[in-house]
Amino acid sequence: KMLKRVLCTVLFMGALPSLAEVSQGHISVVLLGATGDLAKKYLWQGLFQLYMDQVSSGHSFTFHGAALTALEPGQRLMFDVLKKLACPPDESPNRCAVLKDQFLKLSQYHQLKTAENYTMLNREIETLLRQEGLKEAGRIFYFSVPPFAYTEIARHINSSCRPPPGAWLRVVLEKPFGHDLESAQQLAAELTSFFREEEMYRVDHYLGKQAVAHILPFRDQNRQFLDPIWNRHHVERVEIVLKETVDAKGRTSFYEQYGVIRDVLQNHLTEALMFLTMELPANVSRAEEVLQCKLQAFQSLRGLEKNSAVLGQYQAYASQVQEELQKTQDYISTTPTFAGVLIHSDNLRWEGVPFLLASGKALDERVGYVRVLFKNRAYCTQSETLRDAGHSQCKAKQIIFYIGHGALNTPAVLVSRNLFRPVMPEGSWREAVGQSDLHIFGQPLSDYYVYSPVKERDAYSVLISNIYHARKDFFITTENLLASWGFWTPLLDSISHQPLRLYPGGVENQHLLDFEMVSGEVAFTLAEPVELLNPNRLMPSDFRTIQTKFRQSPLVSAWSEDLISLLASDIEKTASRSVAHSGQFHLALSGGSSPVVLFQRLARHHYAFPWKHTHIWLVDERCVPLTDTESNFFSLHNHLLQSVRVPYFNVHPMPVHLNQRLCVEEDRGTELYAKEIMALVANASFDLVLLGVGTDGHTASLFPQSENGLEGAQTVVLTESPVKPHQRMSLSLPLINKARQVFVLVLGKGKHDITTLLSRVGHEPRKWPISGVSPSSGQLVWYVDYEALLG
Amino acid sequence: KMLKRVLCTVLFMGALPSLAEVSQGHISVVLLGATGDLAKKYLWQGLFQLYMDQVSSGHSFTFHGAALTALEPGQRLMFDVLKKLACPPDESPNRCAVLKDQFLKLSQYHQLKTAENYTMLNREIETLLRQEGLKEAGRIFYFSVPPFAYTEIARHINSSCRPPPGAWLRVVLEKPFGHDLESAQQLAAELTSFFREEEMYRVDHYLGKQAVAHILPFRDQNRQFLDPIWNRHHVERVEIVLKETVDAKGRTSFYEQYGVIRDVLQNHLTEALMFLTMELPANVSRAEEVLQCKLQAFQSLRGLEKNSAVLGQYQAYASQVQEELQKTQDYISTTPTFAGVLIHSDNLRWEGVPFLLASGKALDERVGYVRVLFKNRAYCTQSETLRDAGHSQCKAKQIIFYIGHGALNTPAVLVSRNLFRPVMPEGSWREAVGQSDLHIFGQPLSDYYVYSPVKERDAYSVLISNIYHARKDFFITTENLLASWGFWTPLLDSISHQPLRLYPGGVENQHLLDFEMVSGEVAFTLAEPVELLNPNRLMPSDFRTIQTKFRQSPLVSAWSEDLISLLASDIEKTASRSVAHSGQFHLALSGGSSPVVLFQRLARHHYAFPWKHTHIWLVDERCVPLTDTESNFFSLHNHLLQSVRVPYFNVHPMPVHLNQRLCVEEDRGTELYAKEIMALVANASFDLVLLGVGTDGHTASLFPQSENGLEGAQTVVLTESPVKPHQRMSLSLPLINKARQVFVLVLGKGKHDITTLLSRVGHEPRKWPISGVSPSSGQLVWYVDYEALLG
Repeated sequence: KMLKRVLCTVLFMGALPSLAEVSQGHISVVLLGATGDLAKKYLWQGLFQLYMDQVSSGHSFTFHGAALTALEPGQRLMFDVLKKLACPPDESPNRCAVLKDQFLKLSQYHQLKTAENYTMLNREIETLLRQEGLKEAGRIFYFSVPPFAYTEIARHINSSCRPPPGAWLRVVLEKPFGHDLESAQQLAAELTSFFREEEMYRVDHYLGKQAVAHILPFRDQNRQFLDPIWNRHHVERVEIVLKETVDAKGRTSFYEQYGVIRDVLQNHLTEALMFLTMELPANVSRAEEVLQCKLQAFQSLRGLEKNSAVLGQYQAYASQVQEELQKTQDYISTTPTFAGVLIHSDNLRWEGVPFLLASGKALDERVGYVRVLFKNRAYCTQSETLRDAGHSQCKAKQIIFYIGHGALNTPAVLVSRNLFRPVMPEGSWREAVGQSDLHIFGQPLSDYYVYSPVKERDAYSVLISNIYHARKDFFITTENLLASWGFWTPLLDSISHQPLRLYPGGVENQHLLDFEMVSGEVAFTLAEPVELLNPNRLMPSDFRTIQTKFRQSPLVSAWSEDLISLLASDIEKTASRSVAHSGQFHLALSGGSSPVVLFQRLARHHYAFPWKHTHIWLVDERCVPLTDTESNFFSLHNHLLQSVRVPYFNVHPMPVHLNQRLCVEEDRGTELYAKEIMALVANASFDLVLLGVGTDGHTASLFPQSENGLEGAQTVVLTESPVKPHQRMSLSLPLINKARQVFVLVLGKGKHDITTLLSRVGHEPRKWPISGVSPSSGQLVWYVDYEALLG
Repeated sequence: KMLKRVLCTVLFMGALPSLAEVSQGHISVVLLGATGDLAKKYLWQGLFQLYMDQVSSGHSFTFHGAALTALEPGQRLMFDVLKKLACPPDESPNRCAVLKDQFLKLSQYHQLKTAENYTMLNREIETLLRQEGLKEAGRIFYFSVPPFAYTEIARHINSSCRPPPGAWLRVVLEKPFGHDLESAQQLAAELTSFFREEEMYRVDHYLGKQAVAHILPFRDQNRQFLDPIWNRHHVERVEIVLKETVDAKGRTSFYEQYGVIRDVLQNHLTEALMFLTMELPANVSRAEEVLQCKLQAFQSLRGLEKNSAVLGQYQAYASQVQEELQKTQDYISTTPTFAGVLIHSDNLRWEGVPFLLASGKALDERVGYVRVLFKNRAYCTQSETLRDAGHSQCKAKQIIFYIGHGALNTPAVLVSRNLFRPVMPEGSWREAVGQSDLHIFGQPLSDYYVYSPVKERDAYSVLISNIYHARKDFFITTENLLASWGFWTPLLDSISHQPLRLYPGGVENQHLLDFEMVSGEVAFTLAEPVELLNPNRLMPSDFRTIQTKFRQSPLVSAWSEDLISLLASDIEKTASRSVAHSGQFHLALSGGSSPVVLFQRLARHHYAFPWKHTHIWLVDERCVPLTDTESNFFSLHNHLLQSVRVPYFNVHPMPVHLNQRLCVEEDRGTELYAKEIMALVANASFDLVLLGVGTDGHTASLFPQSENGLEGAQTVVLTESPVKPHQRMSLSLPLINKARQVFVLVLGKGKHDITTLLSRVGHEPRKWPISGVSPSSGQLVWYVDYEALLG
């Protein structure tokens, strides 16, 4: 009732909007959680800023704080906050005082607990508008409440508080939005049952940080300079970093469930990463175009693995958790408070460029930045000391989006002067006059063009303004959210039992958290300090010594992941030896599922592999077109060949599809392949043949009782498989036995029975073709994982 | 006669070698050109040093200076030099004075002009030895004479001055050793007719520089540290640099014929490059093993092209040449006095690592160094300012062989402290105490382990000692020399008419000589300053508007570089349209040289190209194996396919090599290709066909008067080319004319005549096959550069 009178006063008196302007309609802002921390610290101030900015926009406003607290105490709590609202430095104190007075009068507290409370709120808004003869423009519901409350509030709003047709509804959601892909999908599904996608504004307050928000506009406005250099040929590395000095004290009940990756990397740093890596849409302010490019960029990210990250935990965290969560002394937290992650994008623009994301609590300084470091491609003939200070091409070239704090202590965009003078939007960014003695990333500030915002705006003020303007590109859509969780969840799963490096906190950390990239993985630079929580899985370091022979040949055994690593390294060693010896390496690979992991490992971690000199042959093939997903070659192509640089001429798929029909005798595919082998492989003796074993003892596509391929002179044969597709082409056993090396890979519990059997039987290829593998002058090595070996 | 008495005195008196030691035999050193510049400056001093070092070795010595000058004046000239010989600082003045006195007495001048003179010299040596009862150990003939005198002197030595059996002959040769591959081969052949390979000691005095001489021992002694990092994964770049402040004044008669590449790069810097890049032999002091590894390293070097180098000439050079060589004012010298060269090695260890060689006269400082810069693979979490100064992995990592002069002013080996503490030979190298304020390559000296020689030795002293010790690994063998000329000669040929950048000299050069690497080539960083010898090409910026049609079809015209950019963009647009429309893009590409630049542009600048959905077809092919460098597919593979990700299944080389013989009718290759097209390309209508034009008006491999392919139903045909290789496979004109788009690319002055002709003639495919290109329902666009269009 109070509110009504106030609105009239505000509308019809003083130096205030004229009636004509008011015709834009009325906006009701409902802040749920109006007396919570976030509201106190940022949101009310942001709403006040919105009011100051838009008071003359033609919209009228009312602000409804809401919480579970009863009316009287809630009102008191809320107005205590409102009274403390600050006037921004760029606002005249008089105007601000008047506007603050109005803002307080336009604000009202509501208890929102029951369905009736929501109905009541709705009725009040309707009544007010009717009485004042105001058209309704829309309603903003800002969810500053814990995620468990989301669903109920959403249901109430949807059923009782929707504005009438013609007016819009915007619900603003704060993270966390789930804590892995599954929970995020579930939450998203629930919300979608209440709100349309365009009604939801998911906040990532990093998108309100001025330096982050300017990444896309910067790329857009500087296309002329960036087009030639924004790619793997010019970019050496990218660092996206958010360092905090504070720790998690007082917040462990939240933090213990989330940790640094969910808290910072999955959302804030990932969004910055997307702005950097996505292809630029024609129009960077069209939310839909931006979203599509972003989703594409997500698709190009290479999957993360255990060793894509280094993780740490500050030493005091354990006791903080024990204290705050009332845990016993032997409770061990596995929550990382520091993470460094190496990300690769597999699109052509970024292939090979390392994107390093790092964040942590209890570090040496508070700072956030996105740093693009370019390669030095220049040679400067003049000696350093005699060079003029200006634009030397030999100095580091960088573009830095400085998010805030740190040495600069202001948001900024920095561009090395030897790159280009950037185009910056006049009015909102201005060139900063530098403190000449300051160094940023190893260079004096004077080496950069430095721009900072004309008005420094708090992220929430920016976001609230963007909600008002319906700039959906500043918010996280459902697809975007799920893409990000889809990317991070496998890492989160795989590191859940990863050991964490303990660090003392603050400047004491020294080099303890430095890390290095090695073959697409990361590892801490300093070896083996005290580590928390070594995974207490079995460590059968002695398993390896149980047996060293299998069927009289050398046996390598380990957990499957380690086994694949060993096998890949051994293949690379064999390859290097062959190339050093004969200039080439002839490798014959089997199909099936086990090798897929091996192919991926070879593609991603073996940069020194002599692919250029490697010939790839198939051990066997299914009689399907090569482009069929069932084809062994198709799988090999997908998981290996597409990622490495084997010359086209060195790739030798089996000719199963020469004419219309597959694997018909008259096409003479087997003869053709045999001829090709004879022509290229000395003595038809492959340098390495990789085999698997079936549960029936088959290997290659040589099945028990096979008519072809187990003996005789034919080197390439057509065979019949008991399972579909039945027709196969395969190297013969005699040909395989001519190889210099044969590695047999056996993985998984499902192979335990055949493994056990094979350890006992002799040479009986008709019964178990694999038992006939016995290189006449080469070497056979068995790679059997613990599960296959020990069940 | 004098000499004989002296030798006895020296041998039997004073604090001198005992008789027992003398039993090693006598060495006669003959210095030809004994009164020349080099002899004055270095060689006599080196011989004196040898005497001082070896006086107690058991060998006795005599030193024979020789020149064309008559006895009396020659003697006077020579002893004027000998009197000025200096005592090294590490030698006691007394001992040195005694030894210098002896050295002078053991030295004698000879006029060596005629055959008789040589016979006489030989007789004198023999007589002396006989009279003294000395066994002859060997003879050293040091050629410090101009190269034109080599052959005659060599003939005389060979016929008259060979020592008796059991004693060795060593002839020491000074550069230049020819001035390109051919002349070097000729000179080498002549010398080989007089001397055996093991008798020849070709001096590259850089191999006597202590820092250069230590590269191989350093690599050998530090294998444990270098093995993991001495490769492309860790090395970012290597710089091999020799900068001089002096200019060529007074030496232009020599310099004008040679220039900086022949004077410094072909020999000194190349040798340093070899020491860095060669594989390490098991024993680095075995000359033969070192040589073999060096020759292999030469073989791995990628051939140099015109744009592998940037060239300059200091401004005063022209007038110095005019003055000293009595040339007229309009004489223009094309001799470079500065060169920067980018070298790549194609072996697996170094693939992609840039080796930058640079040298010049009239530069800002005198310095020589070999610098290996390693990649930074670390991320340092602690902020710079808070890091301990010591071993941060984020600081630059370098290994520097500092040859001399410059800021350090001493030979040195520097290793960044964050790399490793190197193993250095005790006794000959010691850790240097640094001037802490000195910066070397951007880092304070305290960031390095710094080692300098215990005794600083002049290069010639080192080399003369190595001649004495028969350390052939310090000298250039014939094979080594020819390998080096073989590498440099193509560049020398291709740059002989290259414009040179003029530079003022000294510190005034500023950034004028800085250069940058772009796509495997180098270019000066600063664009277009005053250049000498700029080809005075027209700059028709308005040409673009002259014509917009050519033969009734749209014409795009520009300078060739711009034209290629436009064409590449248009191809990408066509590709994206096709993929959007049909999900795939069928592109047929021609061979030849013009498309190579286009392929490179597509590979390097078109990251959004839908390669994954593109099918690559060949317009024509030469009947050679696909892996032959003549093959169109091979070139396409090298310049495009290897750099992009076209699925294996989408690549369609022409089947010119189905069986043993190439392009035989019975293999039915044309039918096979036609079938493949029919199966995959809707209506056999390519989305885009790229064609070129020959000077005879041919296109694809359809030549004037061709029996096949100009008309008729056959879509793929075998044809005959007037030039080798004669046999070709080609798409037919009717098939080409079914395409949706045909782009014809015409580049260069050489195509001006045919372009002019084609602008006038009508449809006469039998005379000019290109005139028959006229897509029945598609579009034809001409891309003709200004040179082809306007001559």
